[in-house]
Amino acid sequence: MTGEVPKEDGGAVSLEDLRQKMVDFVKERDWEKYHSPRNLLLALVGEVGELSECFQWKGEVPKGLPDWKDEEKQHLGEELSDVLLYLVQLSHYCGIDLGKAALRKVHLNAIKHPVNRYIKSIPEEENKKSDDVDDDDDSKITNQDNNNGNGMTENLQN
Amino acid sequence: MTGEVPKEDGGAVSLEDLRQKMVDFVKERDWEKYHSPRNLLLALVGEVGELSECFQWKGEVPKGLPDWKDEEKQHLGEELSDVLLYLVQLSHYCGIDLGKAALRKVHLNAIKHPVNRYIKSIPEEENKKSDDVDDDDDSKITNQDNNNGNGMTENLQN
Amino acid sequence: MTGEVPKEDGGAVSLEDLRQKMVDFVKERDWEKYHSPRNLLLALVGEVGELSECFQWKGEVPKGLPDWKDEEKQHLGEELSDVLLYLVQLSHYCGIDLGKAALRKVHLNAIKHPVNRYIKSIPEEENKKSDDVDDDDDSKITNQDNNNGNGMTENLQN
Amino acid sequence: MTGEVPKEDGGAVSLEDLRQKMVDFVKERDWEKYHSPRNLLLALVGEVGELSECFQWKGEVPKGLPDWKDEEKQHLGEELSDVLLYLVQLSHYCGIDLGKAALRKVHLNAIKHPVNRYIKSIPEEENKKSDDVDDDDDSKITNQDNNNGNGMTENLQN
Repeated sequence: MTGEVPKEDGGAVSLEDLRQKMVDFVKERDWEKYHSPRNLLLALVGEVGELSECFQWKGEVPKGLPDWKDEEKQHLGEELSDVLLYLVQLSHYCGIDLGKAALRKVHLNAIKHPVNRYIKSIPEEENKKSDDVDDDDDSKITNQDNNNGNGMTENLQN
Repeated sequence: MTGEVPKEDGGAVSLEDLRQKMVDFVKERDWEKYHSPRNLLLALVGEVGELSECFQWKGEVPKGLPDWKDEEKQHLGEELSDVLLYLVQLSHYCGIDLGKAALRKVHLNAIKHPVNRYIKSIPEEENKKSDDVDDDDDSKITNQDNNNGNGMTENLQN
Repeated sequence: MTGEVPKEDGGAVSLEDLRQKMVDFVKERDWEKYHSPRNLLLALVGEVGELSECFQWKGEVPKGLPDWKDEEKQHLGEELSDVLLYLVQLSHYCGIDLGKAALRKVHLNAIKHPVNRYIKSIPEEENKKSDDVDDDDDSKITNQDNNNGNGMTENLQN
Repeated sequence: MTGEVPKEDGGAVSLEDLRQKMVDFVKERDWEKYHSPRNLLLALVGEVGELSECFQWKGEVPKGLPDWKDEEKQHLGEELSDVLLYLVQLSHYCGIDLGKAALRKVHLNAIKHPVNRYIKSIPEEENKKSDDVDDDDDSKITNQDNNNGNGMTENLQN
């Protein structure tokens, strides 16, 4: 049923490759009329829901998913991909260069969270406290235990 | 505050580049202990929420976001990036090659939705009906008007 | 559609009714072992995804959904209910009294957004500006056009 | 925390109470123009994101949240409430009676998952297998280990 899976090396896949493939896919089927930004956003939310369903009754799962069957991992890969493909399309139809934006965001994250704030030799409790002080402008974090893990959730623009 | 934004061309950014950058970022800050699959999934859901907030009070917005201010588009790019960066990390810590999975999914989508099922010369209503017949195994679609736009939401594995 | 639908008046349904029904439902099937907070949260996210799918290819839809078929509205009611039932369960298993919390939140919202800040005689543009000034501590709002509609999204605790 | 919290007993709060309060709240502030179905849906997704952030770096948390600080639980109650209040509004502006729909869905769930299919004396593995057979029309379940917990996620309409 699935036919031949492409032989290309997934690791080298660029966001531009995927964007071009999806734009062509949509055009060939005359689906552009459906691909408004908010339609695509809701479709993405739908896929995030399906991604969550892969994990919903499992309790905590260890990294690498050692206990998952091959078919479960394949299904998970499909749901992760669905989210990615809608994200690429949403960016495209919003006129956002996702690759460029992502590189910029990684850069901003690194400025916001300098490595030396998280030196391993500092006891964790103390480390967290200094983190709280620095981040006191970010109301969403103040109620959380594990601020250190929160690097990418903050709005680094401000 | 934002410092120098990297000069790399975003279009050529590969998923592997981003994966490597994020793995390094996390390791340098000793955050790996927080990056379990379900933690990352919930962080991704949090970012999808922030992405939705960019669009929530706007009503329908046209492609290209012609009426958005530059700072709004920049903020949107950051939220799109946050979703992408967590998706890349979630895939990594689940042991899934996201690039490979995405190429495979594009391929499966093309098999599921052959171009000739959506020929433009066929009246839309008729086109939709034939779609309904083919997809009658997919309960989630039966209540929708615009099946044609639904390409990537179906589970193509079955 | 399947069997007899209960005759109770939906309008008078209390959150406590639903909580009790769901707790009984889960106990009778010996499912309590699956109902950890994060499992229920991910199940809720899954249902929000299905709710979004009801709207994803439709473009903007007017209030009251005048163009939707009866079966579409019935399906929508089911998805809204699924979200609600998981929300009730998540609250229960977290030890949160959802009804009490909701009343408190309505109260906090009213304090945060006093009616006189949104008097209709003030030109909208000016109204928005004064809103921006007041809310300048809330970074998530600054990029949005329609701040007035944003009442319930803010963290009113701070 | 800010002002007097209402003394009403949360347990008896009806969905109709909340619906009426929110409709009044919105009208008093002249916000009805913003409350289109898809605007409210995206606002709800935003709140689900904030709800997820409460749990995102915590790993698995036991029922009752014994280790959470009071302020964390209060914040969680606010996020649960935000989701509920948008859900009530979305239902209202879609013309759906949420209480009635929820009672109907509980009823449909009970038909779909009869108690005797989950008798405790049957070994769990065998119980799961018989579940798989019965549910083989539901593609979303086939990849999951813990089908027994999946009661409310299925589309019981079919």
